[in-house]
Amino acid sequence: MKNISIIGSTGSIGTQALEVVSENSETLNIVGLSTNTSIGLLEKQIEKYEPTMVCVMNKDCALILEKRLKSKGNKVVVVTGIEGLIEVATFSGIDMLLTAVSGMIGLRPTLAAIDQGIDIALANKETLVAAGKIVMEAAAKKGVAMLPVDSEHSAIFQCLMGNRHDEIDRIIITASGGPFRGKTWKQLQSVTLDQALKHPNWSMGKKITIDSATLMNKGLEVIEAKWLFDLRNEQIDVVVHPQSIIHSMVEFVDHSTMAQLGMPDMALPIQIAFFHPHRISNQRQSLDFHQVRQLTFEEPDLKTFSCLQLAYDALEVGGSMTCVLNAANEVSVARFLNEEIHFVDIPRINNMVMEKHSVIANPTLDEVLDADAWARQIAMGIK
Amino acid sequence: MKNISIIGSTGSIGTQALEVVSENSETLNIVGLSTNTSIGLLEKQIEKYEPTMVCVMNKDCALILEKRLKSKGNKVVVVTGIEGLIEVATFSGIDMLLTAVSGMIGLRPTLAAIDQGIDIALANKETLVAAGKIVMEAAAKKGVAMLPVDSEHSAIFQCLMGNRHDEIDRIIITASGGPFRGKTWKQLQSVTLDQALKHPNWSMGKKITIDSATLMNKGLEVIEAKWLFDLRNEQIDVVVHPQSIIHSMVEFVDHSTMAQLGMPDMALPIQIAFFHPHRISNQRQSLDFHQVRQLTFEEPDLKTFSCLQLAYDALEVGGSMTCVLNAANEVSVARFLNEEIHFVDIPRINNMVMEKHSVIANPTLDEVLDADAWARQIAMGIK
Repeated sequence: MKNISIIGSTGSIGTQALEVVSENSETLNIVGLSTNTSIGLLEKQIEKYEPTMVCVMNKDCALILEKRLKSKGNKVVVVTGIEGLIEVATFSGIDMLLTAVSGMIGLRPTLAAIDQGIDIALANKETLVAAGKIVMEAAAKKGVAMLPVDSEHSAIFQCLMGNRHDEIDRIIITASGGPFRGKTWKQLQSVTLDQALKHPNWSMGKKITIDSATLMNKGLEVIEAKWLFDLRNEQIDVVVHPQSIIHSMVEFVDHSTMAQLGMPDMALPIQIAFFHPHRISNQRQSLDFHQVRQLTFEEPDLKTFSCLQLAYDALEVGGSMTCVLNAANEVSVARFLNEEIHFVDIPRINNMVMEKHSVIANPTLDEVLDADAWARQIAMGIK
Repeated sequence: MKNISIIGSTGSIGTQALEVVSENSETLNIVGLSTNTSIGLLEKQIEKYEPTMVCVMNKDCALILEKRLKSKGNKVVVVTGIEGLIEVATFSGIDMLLTAVSGMIGLRPTLAAIDQGIDIALANKETLVAAGKIVMEAAAKKGVAMLPVDSEHSAIFQCLMGNRHDEIDRIIITASGGPFRGKTWKQLQSVTLDQALKHPNWSMGKKITIDSATLMNKGLEVIEAKWLFDLRNEQIDVVVHPQSIIHSMVEFVDHSTMAQLGMPDMALPIQIAFFHPHRISNQRQSLDFHQVRQLTFEEPDLKTFSCLQLAYDALEVGGSMTCVLNAANEVSVARFLNEEIHFVDIPRINNMVMEKHSVIANPTLDEVLDADAWARQIAMGIK
């Protein structure tokens, strides 16, 4: 039995991860769950998966849920706030933490779990984007496995199986190109929130869907890949592949390229992280090449979709800059979702925050958190 | 230093393998070479690679070469005939045999080398098509590595690295479709030898080029894959992929599909076989996805290109039938190359020979060789 705690269990990845757990109930066991405010769904999850402890980030919601559960005689421990989240990520008996929360909030619980020697299934990009060096060094020190839970990094992880790190020439991250692929900068100026929320291939949370439309998501993946796979910046390429069938590739020094393909379904990277080093049988959809018919490739348009260029720039500068880009982007996307700003303001604000930042070359965790807070404040204030 | 003997060193694979040796002369050393009759080229290879022993299959040619070499004071041992070929494949000090001869002639030297515990780089399809069970059982008994040297099986071999055999759902062998892809049976009736010899993507020997045009080559690969990777017949699929960029794929039980991609260049599978389990750097061409632009897939037309269907049928019958199909095909292709018969007579003759054969379920090596000789005789006689 593998005991799994999921922080962010009511989100898109969290709910899909619980489906994988249901499909494999004889080997996977849920011990911890968490939500921000979705206590209705969390209550159902508690009844079905019977965890030991759950965290509700919002204090008022936590109190409501605790009362409801008590009245039913349910004995699950309910905790709250960031300290509660860390507790759900680290309490005794957890074998693996799935960090499925969105945003910087994932960083501290993940680091705390690593410190306890708990293996990490990582669906939270910000953890490595903001503090990749700190996190990967801690994981190496504790001998903790860092297992990627997104289709691109899971693809690269699979391509690397059975190969040595020094045999990597480069990785090729594929990008669908999002709903606005092929549009000009001028056309982007008038796109609406509804249009931006319509991803061609993947059904995901709102934040990541907007990041897919700006290509910021791909930029964050580039930064994440650098840390996860210990690569030099110039070893990370992006190619636009609108069908999202090839999930990413690795070219080796012998110029052999390995690719991982599949239907767009997050259950696969989740399952691979839960069961590594084994592959297990499932009832998911097989690729039908007579239906697929064609796979196409294009160069990404870094000028129009400048968020991806900003990510390369931040990586080049290094230190606290990637954290700052991520923080600025979280704010600008939230403001776009709130219909305060236009789509094209997202890269503009991100860029302005980066320009104002005095970079710290090797930030401590506190300096990362400070840079993050600073960048958010600046991004909030830009008109 | 790895000591390599190459049987069939003057053919297409042999000469490309020697290029790989030249590129890696600090780690690879040639100790044996062989040719059928190309003593001019062999003489140059002897001067460049300084082997200990060479075989010239044709006795007259062997005598001519021996005389020439003696006059130059070259001390290389020249042997001849099938016994000579076995000697070049097995003499003391050989670490790896590359079986690069075309046809059934490769079987006995390969088996003899396995018996001596010599690892095999196998570019000869007939060895496994005719006697897969015998050869793989011998290799398992001696703990000998069987390393595939063709792009498809090397791709599958690479896709399997880091994965367990019981995690394979199926393999997907890609086929370019050859020069006549999309043609009808009626159109095939009038194709010429010149047209059949023009392969769209690969530059290869004549026999294999014709086999690519009939899809018999893909059929032989299906049979070979069964033995090489220990698969059930229904685990082996073929998909037509005209660009020959994806060299083959493996779908695992979790419905993740791994693919190996590269430019069409036989140096890669040769190098991988020579250096396994390591990948080594080379100056070969990298895949440029902005040039590749699209990869397409089609179902193979088993009715028009019935040689592929015959291979599946032979595999289903099993025993000596795959050897008989291969032998019939060697003769029918030779007769087509000799302009004795039409292109569409190749599958017709192959089928007729199969229909006449009384299958032996578990043939011994002698029974395999007898079935081969019988099938050749029958195939010769069909009008």
